[in-house]
Amino acid sequence: MTQQPPQSEPTQSPAEVLAFANQVIAAQSFSTLIGAQFTDITPSQATLRVPLREDLRQHHGFAHGGLMSAMADISLTFIGALALGPNVLTSEFKINFVRPGVGEELVSRASVVSATKRQAVTRCDIYAVKGGDEKLVATALGTIVLADVPTSAANGPTTETEGS
Amino acid sequence: MTQQPPQSEPTQSPAEVLAFANQVIAAQSFSTLIGAQFTDITPSQATLRVPLREDLRQHHGFAHGGLMSAMADISLTFIGALALGPNVLTSEFKINFVRPGVGEELVSRASVVSATKRQAVTRCDIYAVKGGDEKLVATALGTIVLADVPTSAANGPTTETEGS
Amino acid sequence: MTQQPPQSEPTQSPAEVLAFANQVIAAQSFSTLIGAQFTDITPSQATLRVPLREDLRQHHGFAHGGLMSAMADISLTFIGALALGPNVLTSEFKINFVRPGVGEELVSRASVVSATKRQAVTRCDIYAVKGGDEKLVATALGTIVLADVPTSAANGPTTETEGS
Amino acid sequence: MTQQPPQSEPTQSPAEVLAFANQVIAAQSFSTLIGAQFTDITPSQATLRVPLREDLRQHHGFAHGGLMSAMADISLTFIGALALGPNVLTSEFKINFVRPGVGEELVSRASVVSATKRQAVTRCDIYAVKGGDEKLVATALGTIVLADVPTSAANGPTTETEGS
Repeated sequence: MTQQPPQSEPTQSPAEVLAFANQVIAAQSFSTLIGAQFTDITPSQATLRVPLREDLRQHHGFAHGGLMSAMADISLTFIGALALGPNVLTSEFKINFVRPGVGEELVSRASVVSATKRQAVTRCDIYAVKGGDEKLVATALGTIVLADVPTSAANGPTTETEGS
Repeated sequence: MTQQPPQSEPTQSPAEVLAFANQVIAAQSFSTLIGAQFTDITPSQATLRVPLREDLRQHHGFAHGGLMSAMADISLTFIGALALGPNVLTSEFKINFVRPGVGEELVSRASVVSATKRQAVTRCDIYAVKGGDEKLVATALGTIVLADVPTSAANGPTTETEGS
Repeated sequence: MTQQPPQSEPTQSPAEVLAFANQVIAAQSFSTLIGAQFTDITPSQATLRVPLREDLRQHHGFAHGGLMSAMADISLTFIGALALGPNVLTSEFKINFVRPGVGEELVSRASVVSATKRQAVTRCDIYAVKGGDEKLVATALGTIVLADVPTSAANGPTTETEGS
Repeated sequence: MTQQPPQSEPTQSPAEVLAFANQVIAAQSFSTLIGAQFTDITPSQATLRVPLREDLRQHHGFAHGGLMSAMADISLTFIGALALGPNVLTSEFKINFVRPGVGEELVSRASVVSATKRQAVTRCDIYAVKGGDEKLVATALGTIVLADVPTSAANGPTTETEGS
């Protein structure tokens, strides 16, 4: 894709965008619970990391699929907000699990596949990091949409569609 | 669908299946972390509940999309294991978010759409419960597959596909 | 789900809605090419049929997966238009194939899972009909959205999102 | 991804693989009906083209979403067969539509995201070609699995899962 995703706030430096992203994360008690943290954000990619704590496993000791799904949700939504602006909703996503998650850390790298004014299609790949070696464990593809009504409380992306 | 999903252990009573399901949940530190619990399992439906604690929210106070994704992963996998036997892997799933999750509790109801010997297609609907009233907040559709190699450690469904 | 999908044109009779649906189909050269026809539409379900002609097969003689995907696209979009009004776009969908399509006809039954003013989540099940017996061959879940700009040419649902 | 998808028939030249792919296409009456043709296949990418004939449109004159879905099905399945061997089944896929398909031709480029012995996760991007200019119109992500029982008739990938 040669198209440029429209930058919501073009005057922000990468460090400012990263700080803003982690402010949103800090305001999400669930993201804090699982220990998610953005570590690098460029105009084309957002990197989210989760240390693979003992309390994030399934019964065989691997990273839980629900954890990877949660990382996909956070990653896909944030990179969509980077293209559309902060007042977005996550419409849906799909995730494929390709290998057990073993190691010290999970890292998700998200990018924009395509963006119009109102909708961004985003993808992410999630890797397990073990001794410096990265292995793909999951891949996801999702749809982020601009929220209808600008709310005064809008200080970051939301994950659900509008109520009815 | 009129087809009967093959019961993996037809001699178990519903109470025994429910106890087994919650043993698996208890062995998954991540499922324990988010407070997930099966409360009802019939041959055609598995009901999973998560009390909407303060630490499971996004920045607007709604249930985090990552939490709903995790519930979908757990629900879809378990109902697939009910059809295929405990030694299964979750290949993939898709989730649509339809409304913000507001209330005291989230409840996911999962069922089997179709099952062959090696693969089950499963779906779940996730509701937010507020004052006894249920509203649909998300719906998911996924694919659960039989694991290749019976492992001695196989005491419940896993969420990732085999390593390579 | 207890919620009522908002009827776009509540004064139309079921027969009028069916006639309108098949006018849209007739205006879609691709839908005509594959022989798709709506045969029954109620407020809660739209039934689309495709006779399984010799030129709609894959190399083993079964219904081609691409044909089932096309039926899913048509079905999901139309039932979404029934909820949102005719000026809609199909954002995305997911399809699971569960069994080879063998028989005289394929039939897709679509319904609305959830609808707000701007978005409908829709699902369909596709069956192969052989000697009066129906077997599920595929199931799909998708997202239909209201188009941004009302166009004067808007005489039926479109399948793509807005250009940029 | 650094991993190499296992080549099913490593002794075949690219030209032989391309000829084989188009033999399978020629044996699929539906693929022939829509005019699909592979034009380039490398170990990492398969390119499928469909001239945008008048009878492949929706009612606004754009490429029909069902056509793009069918191309995704063919592309994702074939690149999966390239990794797993010819005896495969398409389990499922998801497609996002991002822009109306306008031009002389649609082209789909498919690649393998991850492959184990029994399953390949594959993706494709579909572009509309107009006056030599390519624009992304859809993107898809799917799961291809090895068929259980080697059949003597197995001379190419199938799109449906095993019967039951």
